[in-house]
Amino acid sequence: MNGTEVRAAALELVQCSRFAMLGTLGEDGFPHIKAVLKAEDEGLRAIWISTNTSSQHVAQLEADTRASVYFEQHDDSPWRGLLLVGRMEIRRDRASRERLWEEGCERYYPKGIEDPDYTVLRFVSEWGRYYQFGTKRTFRI
Amino acid sequence: MNGTEVRAAALELVQCSRFAMLGTLGEDGFPHIKAVLKAEDEGLRAIWISTNTSSQHVAQLEADTRASVYFEQHDDSPWRGLLLVGRMEIRRDRASRERLWEEGCERYYPKGIEDPDYTVLRFVSEWGRYYQFGTKRTFRI
Repeated sequence: MNGTEVRAAALELVQCSRFAMLGTLGEDGFPHIKAVLKAEDEGLRAIWISTNTSSQHVAQLEADTRASVYFEQHDDSPWRGLLLVGRMEIRRDRASRERLWEEGCERYYPKGIEDPDYTVLRFVSEWGRYYQFGTKRTFRI
Repeated sequence: MNGTEVRAAALELVQCSRFAMLGTLGEDGFPHIKAVLKAEDEGLRAIWISTNTSSQHVAQLEADTRASVYFEQHDDSPWRGLLLVGRMEIRRDRASRERLWEEGCERYYPKGIEDPDYTVLRFVSEWGRYYQFGTKRTFRI
């Protein structure tokens, strides 16, 4: 696979994924992982996630914005994985809240769109690494 | 769920998982994630993984043993996740190699059990955090 093919395959994996793994740093610098729902993507460049303000990873990201997002598929063959490494933006402005708000969100955030427990994360990729059987390739975003 | 029930649920999730997400630290301290095959477990206490010596995460773990292993299930309801945080041992001794070696490994390591590209990782948990709808609980191992 050449660089263009790798980016296309990586993009396809992001776009077909509903879940992602979020990598953050604990207080002591240990790497942490948590499964999250991908709410939206801007291709490989940015991933939007809605989450609870009270979540441990929000506090971690407030202290240190270094993060990663990992997508993978192992149900079908070949096994594919994409690591995106970058920085997290924590957004609590109205426009970001509206962007990800959808019907049913009241179930999780009963106070509505301004619920203080509702936080929007926008992960901005700096580089990526794509894996597929026989292929490993690192690329800048 | 009380502490005993959480540990039991966490253990059950480890034992039924064939895959895990491995968290490591990049050179610049950013968190990295990669899907790996869980070869064996010692309950919640330790997770064994066989991997390629040439893998990026092996070099990272040689530089910094801080790591995490994450298990999750989102196919069935409720969504469950377990984060284990601890340190990685990199093992290249004969006994560890034999422990994880099984028929078919020659396909990946053509030089056999002493293939220099064959590395055994033993992750030793220090603490864990279990998630299930309505439950979040941190515990020492």
